[in-house]
Amino acid sequence: MKPYVIGLDLGGTNSVFGIVDANANVVAQTSVKTRGHGPVEQYVADCVAALKPIIEEVGGINKIQGMGIGAPNGNYYTNCIEYAPNLPWGMEEIPLGKMFSEALGIPVAMTNDANAAAMGEMAYGAAKGMKNFIMITLGTGVGSGIVCDGKMVYGSDGLAGELGHVRVEPHNGRECGCGRTGCLETYCSATGVARTAREIIETSDAPTLLREIPLDQIESKDVSIAAGKGDEVAKSIMDFTGRLLGRACADFACFNSPEAFIFFGGLVKAGDLIMDPIRKGYEENILKCYAGKAKMLVSQLDDAKAAVLGASALAWEL
Amino acid sequence: MKPYVIGLDLGGTNSVFGIVDANANVVAQTSVKTRGHGPVEQYVADCVAALKPIIEEVGGINKIQGMGIGAPNGNYYTNCIEYAPNLPWGMEEIPLGKMFSEALGIPVAMTNDANAAAMGEMAYGAAKGMKNFIMITLGTGVGSGIVCDGKMVYGSDGLAGELGHVRVEPHNGRECGCGRTGCLETYCSATGVARTAREIIETSDAPTLLREIPLDQIESKDVSIAAGKGDEVAKSIMDFTGRLLGRACADFACFNSPEAFIFFGGLVKAGDLIMDPIRKGYEENILKCYAGKAKMLVSQLDDAKAAVLGASALAWEL
Repeated sequence: MKPYVIGLDLGGTNSVFGIVDANANVVAQTSVKTRGHGPVEQYVADCVAALKPIIEEVGGINKIQGMGIGAPNGNYYTNCIEYAPNLPWGMEEIPLGKMFSEALGIPVAMTNDANAAAMGEMAYGAAKGMKNFIMITLGTGVGSGIVCDGKMVYGSDGLAGELGHVRVEPHNGRECGCGRTGCLETYCSATGVARTAREIIETSDAPTLLREIPLDQIESKDVSIAAGKGDEVAKSIMDFTGRLLGRACADFACFNSPEAFIFFGGLVKAGDLIMDPIRKGYEENILKCYAGKAKMLVSQLDDAKAAVLGASALAWEL
Repeated sequence: MKPYVIGLDLGGTNSVFGIVDANANVVAQTSVKTRGHGPVEQYVADCVAALKPIIEEVGGINKIQGMGIGAPNGNYYTNCIEYAPNLPWGMEEIPLGKMFSEALGIPVAMTNDANAAAMGEMAYGAAKGMKNFIMITLGTGVGSGIVCDGKMVYGSDGLAGELGHVRVEPHNGRECGCGRTGCLETYCSATGVARTAREIIETSDAPTLLREIPLDQIESKDVSIAAGKGDEVAKSIMDFTGRLLGRACADFACFNSPEAFIFFGGLVKAGDLIMDPIRKGYEENILKCYAGKAKMLVSQLDDAKAAVLGASALAWEL
């Protein structure tokens, strides 16, 4: 086994590269704007040019086991980015894994952001040593990565693990960006939390710090901050969100009876204000044979590095 | 690889043994009453005595790869039956796998009925060659077996795959035997279908053949038969049941993006009367990225032999 791997966190704005050792140290880092390179071939060439000096820094390409890419709509099986609306290369299948592999001369694997986060927790974080767990990422949407018997669940097409689109409210649920209604992410994503806040503020007269913010500018973070200050309305929003997420996780447990759920994302920064309701919702709804078994954990990866670490974790398997 | 395996379908009444070849032929069979042996040691001794002659028939124990047991609450990891209320040995952990292994001198594996059914489909039936699928068994309850990347999902404790207890109606759902409400099996099991029938008959005046049966004696089978005769009420019950099951499967797809769902049990005998609504419910509710991918299939195992075949399939992995 070589001492390093490369992780690429490919976002709509920035492409962040890190060279990582087995102890989750990002020993060298660089980044490139994702847009403005013209065709994808030029993007790859510009990335490789940016990588060259940091690869030399760690002793050259022979010290590097492989590269992992975490990308929206990244497909592990095809090593392609499939129809990613927020990336600059149109709605094509982009064989980015193969292109980087050929340009660098090392094996490259790819998956989506939430799966990469799960791999990161398993390689370096809260899931170290675990064989069965579910990663839940709470961002603009709700993502998930599912690990069974030590292996990422990719499914028949590489697109498994979309638990954010399990419908927790089958009737009269909120409209979701996916075109359906009642999906988990319409309630428990950052946008879902803001939506709940607006709903409550508009439909009640209860005093709350959140009224100081223009209604259409309230963000999930504002709710967390207000809840931290003891604001009752904000606390009730956290309670609603966490209980619902906990209830959903109780259903997810019926799939793979995980030893833990690991939560990542801005919302989790609220600590017990969100984790306690998650645990409560889970306990209230879990099937008896699973009760008391799964831990509800917070990601152990440093936020700023989590995406690069997660992507890099893929490469240890190469 | 030796030419035969033994399957044991361990039920509350009968323990049915079959010696099976790789082509799903049950080449020899015997059975023993599950009750009336006194302690479990005597049960095992009596089973082995019954097995002896059929083992000799196929050329002796050296021709047998191993034995698989499908049993209520059978746990693959511990090789024990755990707290099975319908078996005669009380609420203990019974190390039945180990006991049979020692008595016969061959390796023995155990799992629950629904997992065994999934293994049977994978070894001999509709899932032959598949790597990602979900088995749904529709009996008194709703059971499930989940296969990811060619492997049965057992989870952290051997109890994974209880999709019958995913809550499809989170609010005002039917009471379930598990102590919660709204579980899939309260709607889509045989008992669930009978419950729907009673509800509809009691709350409407619509003419239906089902009124010829005393209300408390209506069974799922009666609904299938009436629907087969074109009875509109019975057809609407099948439609309700299938649509709901299809909707639930659309949520399940978010977990492992299966290439197929395979349905087994009495209800499935209604053919398109139930499969069409399942397909419709699935299509109406599936997340776009999975649409049109999973096949909705009926078990290909002969009903009478399915449980023994399923149990035997476990042994090919030994």
